[in-house]
Amino acid sequence: VTKAAATDEPKAERLFSADILRALAAETFAACGLPGADATEMGRLMVEADLIGSDAHGIFRLPQYAQWVRAGTINPRANIRVEKRGPATALIDGDNGMGHLVMAFAARTAVEIARESGVAWVGARRSNHAGAGALYPAIPVAHGMVGIYAAVSSANHMAPWGGAEPLMGTNPIAVGIPAGAEPPIMLDMATSVASFGKIRTHALEGKPLPEGWMVDRADGRPLTDASRMKDGLLLPIGGYKGSGLALIIGLLCGPLNGAAFGRDVREFSTSATRESNTGQTIIALDIARFLPLDAFKAEIDRHIRELRASARLPGVDAIRIPGEQAHRRRVQREQNGVPLTPALVKELDKLAQTLGLERLTARSS
Amino acid sequence: VTKAAATDEPKAERLFSADILRALAAETFAACGLPGADATEMGRLMVEADLIGSDAHGIFRLPQYAQWVRAGTINPRANIRVEKRGPATALIDGDNGMGHLVMAFAARTAVEIARESGVAWVGARRSNHAGAGALYPAIPVAHGMVGIYAAVSSANHMAPWGGAEPLMGTNPIAVGIPAGAEPPIMLDMATSVASFGKIRTHALEGKPLPEGWMVDRADGRPLTDASRMKDGLLLPIGGYKGSGLALIIGLLCGPLNGAAFGRDVREFSTSATRESNTGQTIIALDIARFLPLDAFKAEIDRHIRELRASARLPGVDAIRIPGEQAHRRRVQREQNGVPLTPALVKELDKLAQTLGLERLTARSS
Repeated sequence: VTKAAATDEPKAERLFSADILRALAAETFAACGLPGADATEMGRLMVEADLIGSDAHGIFRLPQYAQWVRAGTINPRANIRVEKRGPATALIDGDNGMGHLVMAFAARTAVEIARESGVAWVGARRSNHAGAGALYPAIPVAHGMVGIYAAVSSANHMAPWGGAEPLMGTNPIAVGIPAGAEPPIMLDMATSVASFGKIRTHALEGKPLPEGWMVDRADGRPLTDASRMKDGLLLPIGGYKGSGLALIIGLLCGPLNGAAFGRDVREFSTSATRESNTGQTIIALDIARFLPLDAFKAEIDRHIRELRASARLPGVDAIRIPGEQAHRRRVQREQNGVPLTPALVKELDKLAQTLGLERLTARSS
Repeated sequence: VTKAAATDEPKAERLFSADILRALAAETFAACGLPGADATEMGRLMVEADLIGSDAHGIFRLPQYAQWVRAGTINPRANIRVEKRGPATALIDGDNGMGHLVMAFAARTAVEIARESGVAWVGARRSNHAGAGALYPAIPVAHGMVGIYAAVSSANHMAPWGGAEPLMGTNPIAVGIPAGAEPPIMLDMATSVASFGKIRTHALEGKPLPEGWMVDRADGRPLTDASRMKDGLLLPIGGYKGSGLALIIGLLCGPLNGAAFGRDVREFSTSATRESNTGQTIIALDIARFLPLDAFKAEIDRHIRELRASARLPGVDAIRIPGEQAHRRRVQREQNGVPLTPALVKELDKLAQTLGLERLTARSS
């Protein structure tokens, strides 16, 4: 999950309303063969990532997704269905559809099951890249539940601890906890120190990488020349600990769901033609099984405020709770628009033209 | 969770058979007023920590536990019970009993529920320090299930990210995944880079702390003088990421269970007289709801072997899977005995004498 440095918008960026971006994405997917309702949901979910500041998982991905769907690598008319169902579990067959649709379906299924049983563990196989992890715990959270999302990354950029081969993803986890008057707590993190997207950005900008982000596959020493990223491995958070977390997440979202892990993970590239068989998992927990929801929310509010009001280290302007900045950004961007770089705008215009759609820059903003 | 440096035993340490240590612990707890079956289970669970190498959570803690029970800080005759039960959830009231007993009960309850519903989320409140986290996922694992344990630490040694006050624990998580011919995967980690126990060991040995373990509360700069540990804060793994994990674990094991978190956490010291209201959670997932257990185990074995056989970085002798070393150590120590330092042996002898029990050194080894 890339926390793109998009808070302070450079002057060159241009703002587009969320509605216009949603429409563009929906029309794009419809033109690529998705049924109308699915195309609309894709627009909503993708732009949600832009709104919360997960720019690397938002509309930025539209050209790539469109290419995959048009090439048949992703199934536009997927029959996403519950393959197995227990009193508190489900396994979803994503039918190689868009990961967003698979995981939104999985999260709704989890809420439904958790309402009956108190908790639901819902896994998905034959899914695909699902964008910003935070989108899916947000669904249980909206129903007064805790949401936990985890996934096998679409590409392997980490090695097992001590290893030199990229056999593990930066397998992310996202957890949402409802609050009362405060924004919900939302932690959304990869198990690596830095994302590969961040490395790529450094390479594009010709900036060196800080030590601790990557090591050289050949000798295990810090790799700081971003242009050599192909020779490097991303480092997990906390050394063997983050590596262990990535492994556990990978096995629980991969093999447990009958999805890819390790050597079975397909190379994530625009030229991919084989089904990725991505595995993801969502857990929903009904808080009311433990205590009244309002009492829980009041306690979470109290703890958030006590942490926020606690003494700070010198130079720290504020103690921020996970999800707080994303929530603020969401409000601001829904009102003022989403900033896009000129390069991205150009690419989106090209895509629209290819599909015979109205260009982004031609839509009133 | 302290990974004590006990693999290479210094000459001064003496080996004691696990049976003798179990008997000593059981007799100690019985002498402190625990019912016989509970005392025996305490002996088994505590020494299990020694066997797997979590020495800081093993027999080492016996004097402290005995003191708490005798002082009435922990209830020797706790009525541990299911307070709330849903189709896939339970809330356990630990009645301020020994944390080990509470969590073993919770884990058995989770297995029972997960057998019926596929998954179980079982929380506990009014519990206490439960020793090595790995003990509890091991219970579902022994039943062909995934086990996930998490807890609010007994003491606050971390600050919220950017903060200067120790308001968060190094809240640990332990996850167990069954394998076939390979030892089960068992990740057991705190969310801090180093444990407070490790800091204390450095202080005792007069060794400086590596940078990255602690920061000074006054200025946020690295604290490397271990004797000043009281002025420091432990650092989370991966900066704001590990801090976020610690927060999430703390809220899901604390307030959700009606247990302490943040400012409500009681100071963890031998002089404590107030109930700690420790919160812990165990999740059990029945693998067979997703695929046949044997097929899953075969896949886990295959992935373990593929990772282990993959290329290594220079200087790395082996790629180790979480739980592998603990498993090896367990076999070896069950056979050869558990090494104890002279200081600990002396303390245990003193405790035995106080309680009118046979001294450890008088028992045939």
